[in-house]
Amino acid sequence: MVATRPRKKSAVADHRPRVARERRARTRARILAAAMDVFAAKGPDAPVIDDFIRAAGIARGTFYAYFTSTDELLDATSAWLEDSLIHSIQAEISAMDDPVLRLATGVRLWLRWSIEDRAWSTFVVRSRFRGPLVERQLTADLRLGLASGAFKAPSVSIARDLVVGTILETMRRIVDEKVPASLPEDLARLILRALGLSERLAAKAIGAPAPRIKRPNPALP
Amino acid sequence: MVATRPRKKSAVADHRPRVARERRARTRARILAAAMDVFAAKGPDAPVIDDFIRAAGIARGTFYAYFTSTDELLDATSAWLEDSLIHSIQAEISAMDDPVLRLATGVRLWLRWSIEDRAWSTFVVRSRFRGPLVERQLTADLRLGLASGAFKAPSVSIARDLVVGTILETMRRIVDEKVPASLPEDLARLILRALGLSERLAAKAIGAPAPRIKRPNPALP
Repeated sequence: MVATRPRKKSAVADHRPRVARERRARTRARILAAAMDVFAAKGPDAPVIDDFIRAAGIARGTFYAYFTSTDELLDATSAWLEDSLIHSIQAEISAMDDPVLRLATGVRLWLRWSIEDRAWSTFVVRSRFRGPLVERQLTADLRLGLASGAFKAPSVSIARDLVVGTILETMRRIVDEKVPASLPEDLARLILRALGLSERLAAKAIGAPAPRIKRPNPALP
Repeated sequence: MVATRPRKKSAVADHRPRVARERRARTRARILAAAMDVFAAKGPDAPVIDDFIRAAGIARGTFYAYFTSTDELLDATSAWLEDSLIHSIQAEISAMDDPVLRLATGVRLWLRWSIEDRAWSTFVVRSRFRGPLVERQLTADLRLGLASGAFKAPSVSIARDLVVGTILETMRRIVDEKVPASLPEDLARLILRALGLSERLAAKAIGAPAPRIKRPNPALP
């Protein structure tokens, strides 16, 4: 693709000063933030490019300077969300060396975020977004916990389906209803019990500190 | 609606002999069976009426004698599936007076059926089918179990989201992969543990007989 670009444009991009690069990043972030709302409202298949242009308040030419199709934009939006939220969660749990604690804290942070940011929840539910980073972290922790005997389940995949399915169905409820503030901890407890933890160990994992996370702006350099 | 129908047509329907009624029921069942496959392949929104006509091998005029839109057909297909499978499951569990046993057996029968009939699983996953009868039975049993102390969860809705979400995510796997024959019992065990049952009581509920169910043909009179 790069080779077919007009020579002049690529030369301009290479020597663009910092301020222009930052403006470009801001415009990209603005399109992605608008895209999340559009995909949340209309699902992954129905939106047309005009929807994104209108929501972001940009010109058609500007849109095409960043993305060439709604599919490409959906991929970029998922990647942006994953970068922002999942990296924030991973930053919090990577210092923990117990897979049970990492799983419990990850579930709590994910659900807290879902309650606080309903547009995000709607996007996840409607787009059937599955972040590969989340899957990797989750299956790694389940595998470690099963190997150590902390978790009890006949396979990683059954345990993974319970965790992911429960969270997704709960997010559908979050989109539609007001939920209690205790929901993240309540649900983490049920999940840990399902994975074979005793009440006492489940309560201990849920009682650990789970710092408030803040969405960074990953589009800025 | 009935009042606006042409008089002649309704008179014909009223006096139609049994054999014609049965033929009509068979054609309807044929359209519904084809519709389930079409919705499973294309999802709830994409199919057009030509897809159903082709899949059922009927004339356009025949289709419109039964259904007027794809939305109406989607509703009828869901109702037909609900009638067939859920009534069969209910017939098996209604004699049980323990809500824990009813829930465990319902989950096992539902998943067994999902493994045996992949077209049905695909339809449920893609259409986001939620049978009101299933919801009613499930929430009733959860409520009874919570009231008696057999189940432990902070609310019926959290327990319901865990059961429904886990089953739906498992059905997504069933659509894509070969799963072990023990999956229904394995998953029922995890769900019962999540709901606060001990290993021993969970094993007891899962060990109960769960008769093989056969899909009836609900379209026949």
